[in-house]
Amino acid sequence: MSLQQEILDLGCRARKAARGLASLSTEQKNSALLAMADEIMASKGAILSANEKDLARSQALPSAMIERLKLNMERVTAMADGIRHVAALADPVGEVIREWMRPNGIRISKVRVPIGVIGFIYESRPNVTSDAAGLCIKTGNAIILRGGSEAIYSNVAIVGALQQGGQKSGLPVGSILLIANTDREAIKHLAEMDRYVQLIIPRGGHALIESVVSAARMPVIKHSHGLCIVYVDREADLDMAVEIVINAKTQRPSVCNAVETVLVHAEVATPFLEKLAPRLAGKKVQLRADDSAFARLSSLRYAPLQRASEADWSTEFLDLILAVGVVDSAGKAIEHVERFGSHHSDCIVTANARTAEQFLREVDSATVYWNASTRFTDGGEFGFGAEIGISTDRLHARGPMALEELTSYKYVIRGAGQIRT
Amino acid sequence: MSLQQEILDLGCRARKAARGLASLSTEQKNSALLAMADEIMASKGAILSANEKDLARSQALPSAMIERLKLNMERVTAMADGIRHVAALADPVGEVIREWMRPNGIRISKVRVPIGVIGFIYESRPNVTSDAAGLCIKTGNAIILRGGSEAIYSNVAIVGALQQGGQKSGLPVGSILLIANTDREAIKHLAEMDRYVQLIIPRGGHALIESVVSAARMPVIKHSHGLCIVYVDREADLDMAVEIVINAKTQRPSVCNAVETVLVHAEVATPFLEKLAPRLAGKKVQLRADDSAFARLSSLRYAPLQRASEADWSTEFLDLILAVGVVDSAGKAIEHVERFGSHHSDCIVTANARTAEQFLREVDSATVYWNASTRFTDGGEFGFGAEIGISTDRLHARGPMALEELTSYKYVIRGAGQIRT
Repeated sequence: MSLQQEILDLGCRARKAARGLASLSTEQKNSALLAMADEIMASKGAILSANEKDLARSQALPSAMIERLKLNMERVTAMADGIRHVAALADPVGEVIREWMRPNGIRISKVRVPIGVIGFIYESRPNVTSDAAGLCIKTGNAIILRGGSEAIYSNVAIVGALQQGGQKSGLPVGSILLIANTDREAIKHLAEMDRYVQLIIPRGGHALIESVVSAARMPVIKHSHGLCIVYVDREADLDMAVEIVINAKTQRPSVCNAVETVLVHAEVATPFLEKLAPRLAGKKVQLRADDSAFARLSSLRYAPLQRASEADWSTEFLDLILAVGVVDSAGKAIEHVERFGSHHSDCIVTANARTAEQFLREVDSATVYWNASTRFTDGGEFGFGAEIGISTDRLHARGPMALEELTSYKYVIRGAGQIRT
Repeated sequence: MSLQQEILDLGCRARKAARGLASLSTEQKNSALLAMADEIMASKGAILSANEKDLARSQALPSAMIERLKLNMERVTAMADGIRHVAALADPVGEVIREWMRPNGIRISKVRVPIGVIGFIYESRPNVTSDAAGLCIKTGNAIILRGGSEAIYSNVAIVGALQQGGQKSGLPVGSILLIANTDREAIKHLAEMDRYVQLIIPRGGHALIESVVSAARMPVIKHSHGLCIVYVDREADLDMAVEIVINAKTQRPSVCNAVETVLVHAEVATPFLEKLAPRLAGKKVQLRADDSAFARLSSLRYAPLQRASEADWSTEFLDLILAVGVVDSAGKAIEHVERFGSHHSDCIVTANARTAEQFLREVDSATVYWNASTRFTDGGEFGFGAEIGISTDRLHARGPMALEELTSYKYVIRGAGQIRT
């Protein structure tokens, strides 16, 4: 069987499963989820030793990547707990989103339904495998998983456990499938298979997402990085601004909702940087400053400090590096955000409600903040109970993507013989 | 300038306009719409003579297509009235879809915003040009139009009038753009331009849609044909079923929500066909019947009658042709709909609520009907006030697509200095 035929076969099996999944009750789906969680725990030995094989092959990878790849008892237990948590969430499928009667007497109901088959392409962390499968089963979708080659043994073991748990509880065969072939071509075949797959979610770096976008025939919801910006206004509470910047930059620098650029209004730039600099220095943050900020930071003897290059304003450092610029007005800050930002999560710190509302209205980002850390862009922090990721697209789902965003809808019309005249 | 550069230039201009459009008030957008409608009326002479040029070039086209292409005073007036009607509808932009407070005190609002730049690709009817432009301006989106080559003179005249009306009322330049180059390559360039265009809506035949889907890098919402099916159950009110089938087949056979296949339960097939046959014969409907229906219709001496080929069950006749099959159960009917239908609009006629609910639940179509004609799948009939078309996709918009479906959303978060711990 060629690779393409192999992928087509997976698609066909997933499609069949999706039909069965769509008609399962909430109770049936929840009991499958609990069985999947149990089976993860029952297979912990096999999962951990598969993970060791992955780790043994991955010595050459950067330590941060190895850390993400590594499983232990605690992480395996967290995977099972994550699935149990999803089982406890409300089921969006079947929800009547809206219902109305037309003058001719037909009653129209807009009802939430599963999407169908979802292709999920991701990298590194093996716990994403079980998270994504749990969310898709909860919403009645079949899932075709394609993890990174570095985690292949772990993923095979995890999916094996999930499938076994699912089968014990009557989940349709084919509900959770893994592309075990780590060839890049497999992604292309998956992305071309719009006959069977209704949505592709790629979560990862630029090259991965580009390969999906250029090949895909079906809708793609990208989960890409973020270049998030905090603007400290002339009327900001500077202590609040410092706490927000420190939190957004240093609490977890490698994530998409961490801040990469701070802009400060010229009138408060000096006092703000005087307060911020020692705190950033304490966290060993490297600064890339524009001329105005550079002069101020130099006189504060901040180190390490460089002049920002043009490229720095467009760079997602995902590290303890921060670009700092001085602007003359909120309008200029908005211009900068629109020009250099990635429309993920951007923030204004100000005590002036009018300036804040202008920023909230004019900044065209998935999440815009007034006086809060950009780190809250997260399904859990939003109260969604879970997330499959953070969409950096505008259609169907934007920002944190959870159960509701994994559904579509249909219209159900009940009549008494009405015809159109 | 190469064709690709020309298209990129249009995209760049539309992108700039979109930012301005997003910050217009409802009043500003409505006054622009009214000015656009006025300018259509003021330009009626130029539009009609441009249309005559198109008609002169189109003598070789089928008469139905010429009929769709042809404008007259009444149709031009209807175009202007259509835009005025859209001006009178509620503006979805700015609507707070949902708002909630988190335990840490941040307030999250999910707010409706424009999508950005929409590429709209369509065929034949020149009034679609003004309809689509009106809906996009109302929702704060810039639009790049690409009509069929047969209507190019008409479209240039119509877009010219819309642009002039828009400019008189302060609409950003570039809000409404037309690709005047009728080369097929232009569609490819448009579909690759995800840097500037956030959504492509292709509305037309299979070849047009395929060329968009295979090239597109951004989301595509297809507006394709429908293969709609009516199932007449064992417990159907047969007179009601006859009215529904006649309406769904003959009221307007060329549209996507017309019925193409009728399935009838074996136990009522003879009495149903006895009632239906004379009515169909009166409308000169050709029948393509399976063996069981063929035997019954032959004994009724129905003509024109053929045995259905395998292909007939998958054919969107879009004409006065109907496939007729006999099934043993509602379950078999559902199987048939899932296998051969296009998931557009399907209907069960029955007096049994339980059978009806099974059909409504298990048939995975954008609109499923119980005891009503499939012809109601339409934005106007749904009460949406307008429609840009009927999505045959599952993501973002499914079924009739109107103002709300032309929007995205963003999250606005207001805090008091909250940081993530």
